[in-house]
Amino acid sequence: MSLASTAPGLLSETAGYRRAAAIFGEAGTVDAYLRFEIALARAQGDLGVIPAEAAGAIAKACRLDALDMDTLRARAARVGYPVVPLVTMLAELAGEHGEWVHYGATTQDVMDTAQVLQIRDALGPALDQAAALEPALADLAERHRETPMAGRSKLQHAVPMSFGYKVALWLDQVHRCRLALAGALDSASVLQFGGAIGTLSSLPQSGLEVRRRLAAALDLAEPDISWHVSRDRMAALTSAVATMLAALGKMALDIAHMMSTEVGELREPAAEGRGASSTMPQKRNPVMCEAIVEAARSVQGASGVVLDAMLQEHERGLGHGYRERAVICDAILSLSGAISLARELIAGLEVDTASMLRNLERTNGLIYSETTMMRLAERFGRLKAHAILHDVARQVCSGEIGFDEALAAAIGGSTPVASVDAARRMETEQAMISSVLSRACPR
Amino acid sequence: MSLASTAPGLLSETAGYRRAAAIFGEAGTVDAYLRFEIALARAQGDLGVIPAEAAGAIAKACRLDALDMDTLRARAARVGYPVVPLVTMLAELAGEHGEWVHYGATTQDVMDTAQVLQIRDALGPALDQAAALEPALADLAERHRETPMAGRSKLQHAVPMSFGYKVALWLDQVHRCRLALAGALDSASVLQFGGAIGTLSSLPQSGLEVRRRLAAALDLAEPDISWHVSRDRMAALTSAVATMLAALGKMALDIAHMMSTEVGELREPAAEGRGASSTMPQKRNPVMCEAIVEAARSVQGASGVVLDAMLQEHERGLGHGYRERAVICDAILSLSGAISLARELIAGLEVDTASMLRNLERTNGLIYSETTMMRLAERFGRLKAHAILHDVARQVCSGEIGFDEALAAAIGGSTPVASVDAARRMETEQAMISSVLSRACPR
Amino acid sequence: MSLASTAPGLLSETAGYRRAAAIFGEAGTVDAYLRFEIALARAQGDLGVIPAEAAGAIAKACRLDALDMDTLRARAARVGYPVVPLVTMLAELAGEHGEWVHYGATTQDVMDTAQVLQIRDALGPALDQAAALEPALADLAERHRETPMAGRSKLQHAVPMSFGYKVALWLDQVHRCRLALAGALDSASVLQFGGAIGTLSSLPQSGLEVRRRLAAALDLAEPDISWHVSRDRMAALTSAVATMLAALGKMALDIAHMMSTEVGELREPAAEGRGASSTMPQKRNPVMCEAIVEAARSVQGASGVVLDAMLQEHERGLGHGYRERAVICDAILSLSGAISLARELIAGLEVDTASMLRNLERTNGLIYSETTMMRLAERFGRLKAHAILHDVARQVCSGEIGFDEALAAAIGGSTPVASVDAARRMETEQAMISSVLSRACPR
Amino acid sequence: MSLASTAPGLLSETAGYRRAAAIFGEAGTVDAYLRFEIALARAQGDLGVIPAEAAGAIAKACRLDALDMDTLRARAARVGYPVVPLVTMLAELAGEHGEWVHYGATTQDVMDTAQVLQIRDALGPALDQAAALEPALADLAERHRETPMAGRSKLQHAVPMSFGYKVALWLDQVHRCRLALAGALDSASVLQFGGAIGTLSSLPQSGLEVRRRLAAALDLAEPDISWHVSRDRMAALTSAVATMLAALGKMALDIAHMMSTEVGELREPAAEGRGASSTMPQKRNPVMCEAIVEAARSVQGASGVVLDAMLQEHERGLGHGYRERAVICDAILSLSGAISLARELIAGLEVDTASMLRNLERTNGLIYSETTMMRLAERFGRLKAHAILHDVARQVCSGEIGFDEALAAAIGGSTPVASVDAARRMETEQAMISSVLSRACPR
Repeated sequence: MSLASTAPGLLSETAGYRRAAAIFGEAGTVDAYLRFEIALARAQGDLGVIPAEAAGAIAKACRLDALDMDTLRARAARVGYPVVPLVTMLAELAGEHGEWVHYGATTQDVMDTAQVLQIRDALGPALDQAAALEPALADLAERHRETPMAGRSKLQHAVPMSFGYKVALWLDQVHRCRLALAGALDSASVLQFGGAIGTLSSLPQSGLEVRRRLAAALDLAEPDISWHVSRDRMAALTSAVATMLAALGKMALDIAHMMSTEVGELREPAAEGRGASSTMPQKRNPVMCEAIVEAARSVQGASGVVLDAMLQEHERGLGHGYRERAVICDAILSLSGAISLARELIAGLEVDTASMLRNLERTNGLIYSETTMMRLAERFGRLKAHAILHDVARQVCSGEIGFDEALAAAIGGSTPVASVDAARRMETEQAMISSVLSRACPR
Repeated sequence: MSLASTAPGLLSETAGYRRAAAIFGEAGTVDAYLRFEIALARAQGDLGVIPAEAAGAIAKACRLDALDMDTLRARAARVGYPVVPLVTMLAELAGEHGEWVHYGATTQDVMDTAQVLQIRDALGPALDQAAALEPALADLAERHRETPMAGRSKLQHAVPMSFGYKVALWLDQVHRCRLALAGALDSASVLQFGGAIGTLSSLPQSGLEVRRRLAAALDLAEPDISWHVSRDRMAALTSAVATMLAALGKMALDIAHMMSTEVGELREPAAEGRGASSTMPQKRNPVMCEAIVEAARSVQGASGVVLDAMLQEHERGLGHGYRERAVICDAILSLSGAISLARELIAGLEVDTASMLRNLERTNGLIYSETTMMRLAERFGRLKAHAILHDVARQVCSGEIGFDEALAAAIGGSTPVASVDAARRMETEQAMISSVLSRACPR
Repeated sequence: MSLASTAPGLLSETAGYRRAAAIFGEAGTVDAYLRFEIALARAQGDLGVIPAEAAGAIAKACRLDALDMDTLRARAARVGYPVVPLVTMLAELAGEHGEWVHYGATTQDVMDTAQVLQIRDALGPALDQAAALEPALADLAERHRETPMAGRSKLQHAVPMSFGYKVALWLDQVHRCRLALAGALDSASVLQFGGAIGTLSSLPQSGLEVRRRLAAALDLAEPDISWHVSRDRMAALTSAVATMLAALGKMALDIAHMMSTEVGELREPAAEGRGASSTMPQKRNPVMCEAIVEAARSVQGASGVVLDAMLQEHERGLGHGYRERAVICDAILSLSGAISLARELIAGLEVDTASMLRNLERTNGLIYSETTMMRLAERFGRLKAHAILHDVARQVCSGEIGFDEALAAAIGGSTPVASVDAARRMETEQAMISSVLSRACPR
Repeated sequence: MSLASTAPGLLSETAGYRRAAAIFGEAGTVDAYLRFEIALARAQGDLGVIPAEAAGAIAKACRLDALDMDTLRARAARVGYPVVPLVTMLAELAGEHGEWVHYGATTQDVMDTAQVLQIRDALGPALDQAAALEPALADLAERHRETPMAGRSKLQHAVPMSFGYKVALWLDQVHRCRLALAGALDSASVLQFGGAIGTLSSLPQSGLEVRRRLAAALDLAEPDISWHVSRDRMAALTSAVATMLAALGKMALDIAHMMSTEVGELREPAAEGRGASSTMPQKRNPVMCEAIVEAARSVQGASGVVLDAMLQEHERGLGHGYRERAVICDAILSLSGAISLARELIAGLEVDTASMLRNLERTNGLIYSETTMMRLAERFGRLKAHAILHDVARQVCSGEIGFDEALAAAIGGSTPVASVDAARRMETEQAMISSVLSRACPR
């Protein structure tokens, strides 16, 4: 973690974050530019658009370690964009063949295509990590599919459920979001190569064939028409990244709440010093959860930025490109880190089933109100049953009397304690868990 | 337009907006609730979960015109949610069978499923309108596929292109966004029915079968597990709506810029009084474009809200539901209106090809710099050619000399005027236009 | 509450919301337009810019009940803006003097100034309500200034504190935000009157004098220069509204958390049916808190919209005006409702001090770790004391041993139980509470 | 500019950006932490809370160059926060007095106060730069106060005005925003020192006196009560930064539009290579304007994030702190860079007054419609005059006839050409310019 870091908590130290940071860093970015220029030169050399020797010389010149990055950085600052001075430097490195570097291309082609390459390089491992999280969630759901706990709505106990059901809810959403993200990445993996305004007017005869070969060489799809000013795929991708992060964030938020002192049902995996307080020796803060939640929150505005970047005038608008790139990089960094943390969190999650059971009993039976109501409904009708239970609840809350006692008084006679029905109650829940498990993690 | 309206300009008077507003309005919303309750009662009646006569009686009771909306509104205000008092009123209307209304369901089931039904009802016609916009764009692109105009980047003339190319860019993105939106709608058309916390614990034996029938009756997909607290599909849908609006907004922004006094290449369709100023008799403001652009901007924050609503704790979080619903409604209203306006705008768009040609010549030939450079590159190499043209540009800008003259002086000899090459230059552009047309509007 | 309402929960039924909704509604908006036109005519009549009789006739014509709103609405929809047709209608109503309606003004003058008038009309009562909330908070803080409870950070028990301290934190922020909002309203209460582009070129001789009188008549400040395209005051105001709402939201979030089943320290005031569940008879949801929290969240994006509206080109940009107006209206509606709810919430808040005390003891003494550490620090130094307590905490958490026992073992000897020091511990806290009370609610 | 930079264009190379980046960077951040710890030790030493020698030893130990940053970074990554391991390292460095480092403080005190110190250090020079921008704008306004140009609304010519009026509009807003930002900085310059949950329970006797001295030493105000969980001042500050940036963005957007090929009234100061295109030799892109506009857009979401961070539960919430800090740092970096660029932009702005005049005549006189209408209004009444001019405009637009000719035909007789009235027309405008100049830059 950079000490000045503005990345949430532990996030920036994870393997996932670091991997993505390398890809989107200075070296990674220039490297992606070079991959474009090499592939372009080769495609043009093969087609005779530029001399074959030139292609070879350019490919040789396009080496990251041959570039004086300080000079490049200084020149880029003067022009306002990095590609113009980079091309000049490459031309110098390519000697007599330097004329043929970047032939027929424009800055935007390099930056857009490099962006796509970097996104793919960074999201690939993140998607693999996400895929590996799912079996861990499936195991947890399976292990606790009958572990009873309180279901909660609006921070109030609602009805009993199993911890496995909660985990299955996480898994269901994480799985769906991962597939959606993989699809969005696939849709966005498209080459941009169109020259000044996308028309390839600089290569009137060979342009389309160069584009075809360039796309093949970079393993990108070829578009029907240039997309330099049609950023919908970037918007869809950004939304998919943010949605995936929100799915992880929901899970982390649940865990953090279950780690609260009063609830005490879960704990993050312990690690020496982690979550310590500088003044409170007893604390073990939910720092992994917090980092994931912050990561999820930090990308909520990203879609808005990319959507705004779609509103650019003519064949290249004013004042949008860097922000689009910045928020997408940030979002992927956050996701990469959050998935790393989520894997570690789930792998080592400490589950206190006794505490879950204890909490379930905390309302003196009131949590069984719905089940009891539905049972009474068979005898009294639902509305009357609702009214009876509402009155019972009022009495139990006031502390005058226990649930069973109050209920017995209300309906004139003994009534089976709802809680004995756990198995029956859980039938539908179990079926839902099984559905999720078999779809998300078929064996 | 409501005079207090905060909906942008003409938007709220369009047929599309009005249609959507009716669906999301008070009557439309309660109607969607009633459709849920009817279908639930019937499914339960068929399965014997509730008496068959009760199902019939409930279906009869669930009529919008039988409800005293003032009473309902007042009671809803007391409870904080509309469903509890609605169920009570329906129970009264259903007489002795009233006990069986809303059997085993919870407020959230009704609200979530109604939301899905309303979204589908509203987006269906919007998607139809969007589909109808595409052939109009295709015609415009076809008609102007060889109409020359200036391509512009960062508000500067870049290289020549055809107006058809610009239209094809619009069409390409609009088409892709429409398909994506249709897909997102399809994915989101899922029933929610799970009782208190989604486990269907209220109907331990029949729950899943009721759910199956309910989904079929409402023509919705059945989920693996309840999604009341897994809102990723809503996030994806919201993003798709906003992205579609951005695609329309980009088009409108281009048109508004081309309507500017100095550019003067396009005009919105004329209509008596439209776009008039209260103080400037000569003005004809781009009011349709403005309304579309505002609509696009107005939904940029929607995704962030829905993503935030995904971050809710446990089996129902606190303080998110209404905002999610509100921004989705607003986004669909805006989209519905914007598509109506876009259709009218494109259908009657006035294209001033003479003005386009005039603007093309405005830089005394400088707009042909790239073409000329690529031609000279064959002789001098690209870098030298770039330097020559850069110097020519400097002279032409300073007003000392014309483009051809300066160029001739620079390269020592006569040079073919680049602009005669228009057809050759346009080859790649034409191929892109054709690709878009054949994919988006195959004949 | 409108049944289709997208306003959070109970909000839209409050007196505050309704009052603001009337001001920003159709009638309220047109009424504000009329106030501008009347004041303009009078100022011009007094100065002889228009005939004195015309001024009288116009003032008489500008009556809401004289206008056919349906016609106005239809015409406004055609033009795209309401003011052009309104002026025409007023001119008709003013008969032979109609020519002098809206003399030298432009649409924007009317809309901007009306917006300011409406904002002031709506925020005035909201600020009064907010001011009345503060003594209620002060009383609550005073009443519970020594009521012990657990301080919590990151959902973990931290150190003991008093409930009064928590309330003082709420009060401190609410008070500061109210003053800031009052200041922002004051700064934004500025007339806009400048004609087409703000230069008053339509009234070259009398313009500034008309402006002066118009400002005086409407009790607004006069600007140095037109602000039709300088919206910074609107941005500042919007931010102040949102910040005030966030202050209320923080308070509501705390209360909702303290209402959670496991914490159980507070309850919203009871009201028949409020917060009921349609399926769980025992529930009493934090619906007031939820509505306030949603209101606070719903305005988080408002500042961004108004900031974006500042980025408009030239003397009137394209595609911003309606959104600015819409988000400001919505924000003020939300604030007005939230303050109403907050007053009711605080007035009837049920405080369970026994539960607070019970929770304080829940960690077997660990919550006294910091106090104990500081005591031990005097003997062992802070770092060693931190290490001792950290070890004690580990033992107590594992359930092997109680806090006092573990501590005694660790430091070899008996130690005063930290909790007896409550009075001493609270000294600084009490001083802070007093500071807040004397600043916010001086007696 | 970092080549991987996601900061817009030239921004990150400016002196302003670099200065702020150093302050918010790793070294700057740790240095701010050290300043807190030094001042704390000294205050406590003076008061005898810790031994006087300890205070001296700690002050000596708190040196940036004594810290092994790699170790610190690694340990911070394990804990999740930097302060715990920093305190440990400082304690080691302070030898036997190490126990007294960070006495009675908590992580949050250090981070919050350091944040305030860094904000003040960074905003100070930015405000100075902004103050220096104002005389430059005043000079420009003064120089061009009678330079005629077209006023524009919704991208349409509206009425004539002077370029000085436009500059005065910029100045008016920039000046007001600067004062507001200075005020917000002042209000936010408040110490945070409260221990675990802000109550200073760790220093029950000396806490308030330590706080007083600590505030004095750091030249910060002392709060009534801890603000660790009351972030309204941060929200107000963030809003003020973003609003200031929007004021600069509006100016840059105007300039970029006036640099468009068709308008051609302004040019950014020339610099070798700046704004060059890799494929279009003739281009001179508005890169400074673009960087400023992007900077302004990039902070639009910042307020929303800080407002969301206000919604944190209890005495320290979960998952907000880093985002708040991150967006505030980013916003101040952007502002610092944008002000540097704005100064350079305005200092070297090239104004093409001939082009302004040419554009003014582009509508064949239609731009004089309002002036003419107001003149005719004296004869025919305003409504009839509006109708006459509307008809004249229609004819002139259709190209049939010139403005004067059409007008003469319409009103039956010769009419003074409106444009001769320039001086009279400009009277009000000139007064407004003077008002702004005398307020913003009194001489």
